[in-house]
Amino acid sequence: MTERGAKRLVVLGSTGSVGDQTLAVAADFPDRYRVVGLAAGRNLGKLTDQIRRFRPEIVSVADAKDASALRDRLGADAPRVIGAGAEGLDAVAAHPADFVMAALVGARGLRPTLVAIREGRTIGLANKEVMVTAGALVRREALARNVSLLPVDSEHSAIFQCLSGQRRGDVARLILTASGGPFRTWDEARIARATLGEALNHPNWDMGPKITIDSATLMNKGLEVVEARWLFDVAASEIDVVVHPQSIIHSLVEFVDGSVLAQLGLPDMRSPIAVALAHPERLPLALPRLDLAAVGRFEFETPDTKRFPCLDLAYAALASDEAAPAVLNAANEVAVEAFLAGGIRFPDIAAIDAAVLAAHTARAGSGALRDLGDVAEADAWARARANERVAAATAKEA
Amino acid sequence: MTERGAKRLVVLGSTGSVGDQTLAVAADFPDRYRVVGLAAGRNLGKLTDQIRRFRPEIVSVADAKDASALRDRLGADAPRVIGAGAEGLDAVAAHPADFVMAALVGARGLRPTLVAIREGRTIGLANKEVMVTAGALVRREALARNVSLLPVDSEHSAIFQCLSGQRRGDVARLILTASGGPFRTWDEARIARATLGEALNHPNWDMGPKITIDSATLMNKGLEVVEARWLFDVAASEIDVVVHPQSIIHSLVEFVDGSVLAQLGLPDMRSPIAVALAHPERLPLALPRLDLAAVGRFEFETPDTKRFPCLDLAYAALASDEAAPAVLNAANEVAVEAFLAGGIRFPDIAAIDAAVLAAHTARAGSGALRDLGDVAEADAWARARANERVAAATAKEA
Repeated sequence: MTERGAKRLVVLGSTGSVGDQTLAVAADFPDRYRVVGLAAGRNLGKLTDQIRRFRPEIVSVADAKDASALRDRLGADAPRVIGAGAEGLDAVAAHPADFVMAALVGARGLRPTLVAIREGRTIGLANKEVMVTAGALVRREALARNVSLLPVDSEHSAIFQCLSGQRRGDVARLILTASGGPFRTWDEARIARATLGEALNHPNWDMGPKITIDSATLMNKGLEVVEARWLFDVAASEIDVVVHPQSIIHSLVEFVDGSVLAQLGLPDMRSPIAVALAHPERLPLALPRLDLAAVGRFEFETPDTKRFPCLDLAYAALASDEAAPAVLNAANEVAVEAFLAGGIRFPDIAAIDAAVLAAHTARAGSGALRDLGDVAEADAWARARANERVAAATAKEA
Repeated sequence: MTERGAKRLVVLGSTGSVGDQTLAVAADFPDRYRVVGLAAGRNLGKLTDQIRRFRPEIVSVADAKDASALRDRLGADAPRVIGAGAEGLDAVAAHPADFVMAALVGARGLRPTLVAIREGRTIGLANKEVMVTAGALVRREALARNVSLLPVDSEHSAIFQCLSGQRRGDVARLILTASGGPFRTWDEARIARATLGEALNHPNWDMGPKITIDSATLMNKGLEVVEARWLFDVAASEIDVVVHPQSIIHSLVEFVDGSVLAQLGLPDMRSPIAVALAHPERLPLALPRLDLAAVGRFEFETPDTKRFPCLDLAYAALASDEAAPAVLNAANEVAVEAFLAGGIRFPDIAAIDAAVLAAHTARAGSGALRDLGDVAEADAWARARANERVAAATAKEA
């Protein structure tokens, strides 16, 4: 392994799906990447394997008990530093590195990502809640330090690739593609009766249950509109969504001359991971190649916001204030959790999201996100309101 | 009109379709473009209008008689220089300018394009015979003078746009799209009986008769493969063709990481014209915007080289020597002309092209293109052989 000139890599959320695949890509190019830090939660088995394989300088786990257990497991193979909890996570995020892959799930990824941004690191952003809950704040921090935020989901990576070599002033419109989810062809009455099993049956991607439900409501696409607004500094009115059930075109950019660029590929997260890791280069990946004739057909539809109102809620949040997307996201997390637990019906998710967002917009206050405290306040407020609505809906059902 | 900082523009073939549309785009941005030279043929009416509108410093027409007629028509509005014939054309091509739009049709565009390249001008290349007949030579000349060749047909402009901001070493494959032409769904027996009217019925583009027949045989796509090979310096083995009947994706580029970029748009030549004119900027054009949901569906097929053998002939020419594409192009021009005149059947076009190319490959000689003389020799030799074959086929028909 040649380490001279290799990028020093930190992975936050190393035992999750994106974290794990990031390490798999890095492992294929040992002369280009050196893994120096890993932050995980409670999956000590997988983390132990990763440590033995990549020999990082620093790791962190959920708490001190896990840290101690990990040290015992690894013995002489233990890295120099094993941290725990929020403090341990921040230490990994701040560890000297060239690239930090922010691949934690949920709002807990926000603080360490900001830590890495403040250290001036190049960020691979897979943790979508970062831009959804605190996009305005994160963008300001990144701009202030001239930090690159490189998107690591397929849609935003597509847009990032289409923008490459183009002048920002020439961009007319971003067009995010959406699979349309499992209920794309269902009528409103059938959607209203959708079971959990039906909602979890995503047509193209194998993902966790939360994001799969968000795909079924189209809230996932709404949250991606929010991310795109802050990642690319484009007004919400210049972001469109088109339903493309085959999920081969990952997104598109329209320019002022009417020309449209699109990025396509088979669904495989290693592709956007590699694009972020290697930017501005590309890694020769041994992935199956796209064969357009084998795919045969692409279809496109306008999203139906009557059957899927969550997409419009995201635009409404962007039209409100900086805190509104955090409110919408928190309400939606509570509602989806309740749906996954069998407490509410599928259409209740959108109804709860809408009600909490409307209540926020009616609140006093500027809604600006000055710091993480403002984000946490918006989140907590929305969770409390959403829980009230879940309780009411559950009572009605029972 | 502000001329300070405006690009000085020369249009070779100003009264043709691309030339005329180039002037229309330039006219919409008078502070960015100043038309300084126009070369036309015998359409003195249109040229007179263009001269009155754009006030070029130099023009050229087909011959001295036309030059004199033009001077009489224009009177006090006549430009300083009115040239005629090959010499006049070369003078326009060499006139001081920032951008030369090479929009002549056929092999006669080659010499003035080389003149402009040797003067170090940035070239907008709409005259496809330039790269088809002399790609190796033109590429060497352009490289030697660090001249940019900016493609102005929809497929190559698409590839050019997809390559923007990308490293050439990261390119795995160029994928040209083809409409498939009017006989895409026809079986071999029906194609063999195709009439001239049927062959002229192109599904997506309204073009001249020669190129429309080339679309029906797929030779047009074969010639575009040759152009792509020389424009982008990519091996023929790294250029693929996919049939896409909707002609919305204009072409694609696959990278080493499996990611594919595509350029899309409604069929309108002003788009690639504007891309070349404005590079590296983009012009805000008032063209209808692509609405994917309105298009609804894209289809893709592998080209059937059994029913459409001309595509393979282009690859065979690239696998032969530098002169072989010029030979194939000349044979094809003769064969298509004979078909348009009603002298031969539709399948005879491919048969004549194949026979002449095979005869060339069997000839002695290196087939290198050292100069325009070599190109002219290959062209003349192929026309003579093709005419013999046309005569034989016509005799057989009669």
